[in-house]
Amino acid sequence: MTTIIIKGEKIWTSTALQSNKMLLIARTKREDETARPIDGLSLFYTDLNRDHVEIRPIDKMGRKCVDSNQLFIDDLPVPKEDLIGEEGKGFRYLLHGLNAERILISASMVGLGRCALKRAAEYARDRVVFGRPIGMNQAIQHPLAQSWAELEAANLMAFRAAGLYDSGKECGLEANGAKYLAAEAAFKSCTNAVMTHGGMGYAKEFHVERYLRECLIHRLAPISPQLILSYLAERALDLPKSY
Amino acid sequence: MTTIIIKGEKIWTSTALQSNKMLLIARTKREDETARPIDGLSLFYTDLNRDHVEIRPIDKMGRKCVDSNQLFIDDLPVPKEDLIGEEGKGFRYLLHGLNAERILISASMVGLGRCALKRAAEYARDRVVFGRPIGMNQAIQHPLAQSWAELEAANLMAFRAAGLYDSGKECGLEANGAKYLAAEAAFKSCTNAVMTHGGMGYAKEFHVERYLRECLIHRLAPISPQLILSYLAERALDLPKSY
Amino acid sequence: MTTIIIKGEKIWTSTALQSNKMLLIARTKREDETARPIDGLSLFYTDLNRDHVEIRPIDKMGRKCVDSNQLFIDDLPVPKEDLIGEEGKGFRYLLHGLNAERILISASMVGLGRCALKRAAEYARDRVVFGRPIGMNQAIQHPLAQSWAELEAANLMAFRAAGLYDSGKECGLEANGAKYLAAEAAFKSCTNAVMTHGGMGYAKEFHVERYLRECLIHRLAPISPQLILSYLAERALDLPKSY
Amino acid sequence: MTTIIIKGEKIWTSTALQSNKMLLIARTKREDETARPIDGLSLFYTDLNRDHVEIRPIDKMGRKCVDSNQLFIDDLPVPKEDLIGEEGKGFRYLLHGLNAERILISASMVGLGRCALKRAAEYARDRVVFGRPIGMNQAIQHPLAQSWAELEAANLMAFRAAGLYDSGKECGLEANGAKYLAAEAAFKSCTNAVMTHGGMGYAKEFHVERYLRECLIHRLAPISPQLILSYLAERALDLPKSY
Repeated sequence: MTTIIIKGEKIWTSTALQSNKMLLIARTKREDETARPIDGLSLFYTDLNRDHVEIRPIDKMGRKCVDSNQLFIDDLPVPKEDLIGEEGKGFRYLLHGLNAERILISASMVGLGRCALKRAAEYARDRVVFGRPIGMNQAIQHPLAQSWAELEAANLMAFRAAGLYDSGKECGLEANGAKYLAAEAAFKSCTNAVMTHGGMGYAKEFHVERYLRECLIHRLAPISPQLILSYLAERALDLPKSY
Repeated sequence: MTTIIIKGEKIWTSTALQSNKMLLIARTKREDETARPIDGLSLFYTDLNRDHVEIRPIDKMGRKCVDSNQLFIDDLPVPKEDLIGEEGKGFRYLLHGLNAERILISASMVGLGRCALKRAAEYARDRVVFGRPIGMNQAIQHPLAQSWAELEAANLMAFRAAGLYDSGKECGLEANGAKYLAAEAAFKSCTNAVMTHGGMGYAKEFHVERYLRECLIHRLAPISPQLILSYLAERALDLPKSY
Repeated sequence: MTTIIIKGEKIWTSTALQSNKMLLIARTKREDETARPIDGLSLFYTDLNRDHVEIRPIDKMGRKCVDSNQLFIDDLPVPKEDLIGEEGKGFRYLLHGLNAERILISASMVGLGRCALKRAAEYARDRVVFGRPIGMNQAIQHPLAQSWAELEAANLMAFRAAGLYDSGKECGLEANGAKYLAAEAAFKSCTNAVMTHGGMGYAKEFHVERYLRECLIHRLAPISPQLILSYLAERALDLPKSY
Repeated sequence: MTTIIIKGEKIWTSTALQSNKMLLIARTKREDETARPIDGLSLFYTDLNRDHVEIRPIDKMGRKCVDSNQLFIDDLPVPKEDLIGEEGKGFRYLLHGLNAERILISASMVGLGRCALKRAAEYARDRVVFGRPIGMNQAIQHPLAQSWAELEAANLMAFRAAGLYDSGKECGLEANGAKYLAAEAAFKSCTNAVMTHGGMGYAKEFHVERYLRECLIHRLAPISPQLILSYLAERALDLPKSY
């Protein structure tokens, strides 16, 4: 049985503390041995062997339901049969899932945004100040209405991307557009929900501060809004690469 | 033949200078004679008789392909057979067309926004400053990419509303949402197009200043963004009326 | 010695867990016994007697250096000599400090915003992606430059308000304007700082997520941006009260 | 008497149609003959001789009180005594005036923004819809209040820059910051003024559409907001050049 020895680092690995197995991408050929740099990367599903992998949890702003970790891999032996697919095609396999991931994240951001909006609308209906529900104030209700429209539009884009993906068509513009729109709309919706609650928005009891913290992870990752805008500028508008 | 005598004023009537006929809504029963105020309004298609109608064109910011006018109607005789449908149902007939109008305007705003975006992207590709096309600057290309995403999302909402309308379903939220999103996205897109052109954005030769002027009419009318947000707050989020 | 018995509730009381004394405002005359409702309120500096005051800490989004609490005051005996100033003038004494408080909060928001900006600029200079510091990207550097300008302008408004206050002049517009501008600019600056850090913005190690959480308390309190805008609309623009 | 022959083009020259004289900058030494490229530029105050200068007016969005022109200069003879200052120092003389120009434009943008705001507030107070002045709506009054705060802050920055300039101190950050803040605030204020007027915002009679067109020239020129943000990023935040 052939064994490969792997070393390196990886950050933002979820649930490593609980896991016995991990999906791992590693370079198995040097850059100068392949036609294109990505051709030397291979994908493995292998044991998360603590003798060779140090796991350091990252203290973070939110997403506390799962641990996020930094992994230090030191001469980890990986049996050849843990290879997924063909050697040197690992990055291509990952690329295959990128658009699907963007679509899933869009849907989850729309869901989070709607959840924040629902709580905000409830609070705005129930909370009475100066003898009337605060939701009567346009300064309260209009930002919520705007968030409603933005979230619904982002959702339509996510479903458009999903439809294209399901029928095997190119969906890069739509998947990236949906991720951008959904994450921005969710951030605004969660921020509006905190602002709608006034001081109570700062108390954990009302949950909206948590929604705001949660939505930031997918506003930032797995792809930043700046990189999506560069992608759209290049692909949808035929503008030159900016970096 | 019965004749009704009509008097009153109307503003923002398009193409009156060229027209021989006009669609006219007028109160034919006093408010206190009907169950609901709108029950007394009737719709007519009748001669635009210059002996009884003074037409004053409005000097305006854009939309110069058609005249917009203020009409002063002074004892205009309208034959009973010019009545459309039943007497007292005029406003209901108009209401019937409101969502369709919002959807059409959404589509036209998406089109205008895309048109501005196309010109801006072309200029950004072609115009070279400091030895490189200005479209290489993220400060130029990212606002355009953002407009692309917003216009596509607004377009999906407009088609969603149109689909509901075509199948005879309720589409008020979608039609109003689409009008709001499309008009705001078009305004941003046209403004971005001017800003992309730098000083040339101010010259009529490049058209984008005209696009900006054109898009403002449908950002303002036939329903303002503020009224749409109130409508969405009440209908989509069950918040109290604010005015 | 006369003793007054006080009961009631108060939320967002800071450092109650550590305190032996508290500043307390209480109604000492019924609303119908005074010319104006606020005339019946008196101010006391008295013992925070745990036998009569239940203190419930509030679990909150940030500001964890001090405890924030909900106080339930049950028949607390307060000796008459604990009264500050004259009876019935308590609310007026508090009002006296409102503008000073707004100015102080403006300054602290400017400071927090600058602190976030400094860290963001450092990270943008040091962090190399695709072979160059990310700060070379306009999508990174322009939002930071915008925050710089907004924070400096808010600071000038805070100092303008402070100058007026120090010379005994009316400074309500300036103090409220400064609080609004500073809190909004700080929120944008802290959000930009998180976004500049990419995924690292989510890790506590880099502090910027904490700045974002911290800045929200003074975006929300002691006066909301919505109430400031109403105040400015009425006082600076002579517009009618909206609520 | 020595005479220099000058040829070239220049765009956006104001009032050329009415002028007999012009301020002219021209290269009098080749780039390879001087230490730095700008050292070969000289400044002249000379006759606008129609025999050698073709003037083409530019049809433009606004600023119709003065003509803006494209100049085609064809072998214009310029007597040596029309030189201003020393030969080769022309660009340095122009640079000297840049900050002063930015400060002046800031002040004019603040003035225009205030003017739009005043008209908008008046209209909001006077115009009654649904039985109450539209200024009672927070959706109308809050954007105006926000513009008030932003314009006042921009004005403080302009005066800060002017104070530094008057005392002979470096004021590049403040002058550029003021120009950026004032132009953005004026654009928002003028846009708000149009939106406040509803459909009437589109009619020339109410002037606000003109204010919006006017403010765009100084949002775009003499320096774009994008270039100011790059300048501030480099000078205030020590970030690398992005272009």
